[in-house]
Amino acid sequence: MINRLTSEERTQQLATLRDWQAVAGRDAIQRQLKFADFNAAFGFMTRVAIKAQEMDHHPEWFNVYNRVEITLSTHEADGLTTRDLELARFIDSIAPDA
Amino acid sequence: MINRLTSEERTQQLATLRDWQAVAGRDAIQRQLKFADFNAAFGFMTRVAIKAQEMDHHPEWFNVYNRVEITLSTHEADGLTTRDLELARFIDSIAPDA
Repeated sequence: MINRLTSEERTQQLATLRDWQAVAGRDAIQRQLKFADFNAAFGFMTRVAIKAQEMDHHPEWFNVYNRVEITLSTHEADGLTTRDLELARFIDSIAPDA
Repeated sequence: MINRLTSEERTQQLATLRDWQAVAGRDAIQRQLKFADFNAAFGFMTRVAIKAQEMDHHPEWFNVYNRVEITLSTHEADGLTTRDLELARFIDSIAPDA
């Protein structure tokens, strides 16, 4: 079992990520990304998918054309955990202008 | 310029698709799909992405783990067109239990 971050951990860790926002009404974080086109957006999603599968920790995400909106939370902990931070850091590392 | 389907065309054509629903308040259609796992869901999305790019007609879609929710509409026509039907038919042809 993995534990939720405490409120302090959450605040501290969120400050170390790029452009992630807390989701209203949920213990989750969200980032919106914009790419040159669909090819670039889906290429990015494919890299995240491979990483997610490797971690066995999957995003909730929405895509339309060149936009991707990603929400991270840990279902089994019903909130934000270190797994979300790890996936968020990977996403930040391959996001445009990284 | 591509024209929106008429109300009659829309009703006729929707009946020929599998499990697509009209979206409330929008001239668009939606289908929800469930897969064995994330690998299967994202594999399916990759096939749709390649088709969409070939057609230059892209879906709005949401994924979490083994679930995919797809919305089709034609932005430049501000509604449903034959392009959406073509992409919906492709999706139906590769959906589970096809």
